[in-house]
Amino acid sequence: MTENNRHPAADLPPLSPTPRSTVKRGAHRSTADRATLYAVLDAGLICHLSTVVDGSPVVLPTGYGRDGDTLYLHGSTGARSLRAAMTGMEVCVAVTLVDGVVYARSVFHHSMNYRSAVIHGTATQITDPDAKLHGLRVLTEHMAPGSWDHARLPTTKELAATAVLTLDLAEAAVKTRAGGPGDDEEDIVANVAWAGVLPLRRVWGEPESDSDLDQPAHITARATAAVR
Amino acid sequence: MTENNRHPAADLPPLSPTPRSTVKRGAHRSTADRATLYAVLDAGLICHLSTVVDGSPVVLPTGYGRDGDTLYLHGSTGARSLRAAMTGMEVCVAVTLVDGVVYARSVFHHSMNYRSAVIHGTATQITDPDAKLHGLRVLTEHMAPGSWDHARLPTTKELAATAVLTLDLAEAAVKTRAGGPGDDEEDIVANVAWAGVLPLRRVWGEPESDSDLDQPAHITARATAAVR
Repeated sequence: MTENNRHPAADLPPLSPTPRSTVKRGAHRSTADRATLYAVLDAGLICHLSTVVDGSPVVLPTGYGRDGDTLYLHGSTGARSLRAAMTGMEVCVAVTLVDGVVYARSVFHHSMNYRSAVIHGTATQITDPDAKLHGLRVLTEHMAPGSWDHARLPTTKELAATAVLTLDLAEAAVKTRAGGPGDDEEDIVANVAWAGVLPLRRVWGEPESDSDLDQPAHITARATAAVR
Repeated sequence: MTENNRHPAADLPPLSPTPRSTVKRGAHRSTADRATLYAVLDAGLICHLSTVVDGSPVVLPTGYGRDGDTLYLHGSTGARSLRAAMTGMEVCVAVTLVDGVVYARSVFHHSMNYRSAVIHGTATQITDPDAKLHGLRVLTEHMAPGSWDHARLPTTKELAATAVLTLDLAEAAVKTRAGGPGDDEEDIVANVAWAGVLPLRRVWGEPESDSDLDQPAHITARATAAVR
C-alpha cells in the first residue's frame, strides 16, 4: 500500500485549505481528497477538541459524528471547553488513528503510520429541538451503531442537559502515512539495523453483558467485525 | 474493575490541579493520583498537542515520551504548532486511550471507557545538545523501545532538524472510566434494552520486515506482548 492511496478520489467537492490548514510539514503525506477525510472521520471513535479559554489552549477528548459535511460534537452543557465553543469561538478538531510503528535503520527516520484529520472552524450550538435530536442520533450511531433504535431515547430533560455543536467540514487537512521506513541510502547499504513496520490494530473484545436479555444483533455484528 | 481503581496510589507527590485543570464534569471519574498519570502517559503512543496560533486553537497529533516528571515533545523545527510552543507559549497536551464503548439502556447514558490525561503548561525548547540527545532517547524509546541501542543514532545535522520540547508534569488532570453502564433505576427495572460494554483493545500485528536481517529480540518481544 502506498501513501495516500487508501481511498481513490471520489466525485466529491475538494477540501478548501487555507494557509493554516495547508499541511506544510510532510506535504507529500497530505491529501485534499474529501473521501479520505470522510474515511478518517468515519473510522475514528473520538476526537480531540481544542479551544482557547482565557487565552490558553485547552484540548479535551470528546465524541463526534459526521453527517455529510457536518461534524457533530457532543458534551455536557457544563463542560468548559464546550462552553467556549458554544460562544461561537473558533475550534480545532483532530481525529487520529495510529496504524503502526515504523522502525527505520536510523533513529531519525523512525515514524508512525497513521491517518489524521484536522478541522478548523467555528462551532455552532444547536438550539432547535428537532435538529438537536438529529445531531444526537448522528453522535449515538457513530459511537454505538444500532443503539438509537434499541435504547430508550432522550427525555426533554436529558436533551436539555446535552450540548450538541455543529462544525462545517469546510477547512480541513488530511494526512496519512502508510508503508515501510524511508531510510537514507547509506543506511540501507550499511545493512546493520533491522527495519520494518509493527502494525497496530484495534479489535473488539468479547461483549461484557450487563443484562439478562439476549445480546442484540447489532452488538454481535460489531463485536465480530474488523475495526476500521 | 471499578472506576479510578486501576492503579493504587503510590508514594508520589500529588498532582497540583489549578481551576482550569480541575475536572468539573464527572468529577467522580477524576483522580489526583500521579501514578495513574504516569500509567496513562506510559500506555499511550501519541499525544494531541494544542497551542494558540494567531489567536486560534491548533491541535496536532505528535510523539512524546516521559522521564520522571518531564514530558518530552517531538517534532520538526518547521512545524507551526511546535514553533508556537517554542516561543514559550502555553500548551495543552492530551493523551487518551479508548478502552470500550458502554452501551446503556438509554441513549443518554451511553458512554466510553477510557483513560485520559490532560496537561497544561509552558513548553521549553531544549538547546543543550546533550539534553536534546537525552530527550530524543526518551522519545524514541517511548515509540520504539530498543531502537536507541539498535538503530543508527542522529547526526549533528539530524539533531539540528529536530525540535525537542519539555513540559513539566505539574498541572495535570487525569480521568478514567471503566466498568458497565450507569443506567437509571427505571430503565434497569423496565429491562427492555440490552446493556453492556464492548471492549476495544489494541494489538500488535505481525511485524512487516523491510530487511534481510533477522528480526531483533526487541521487535519480537513487543510484537508478542499485550498493548497496554
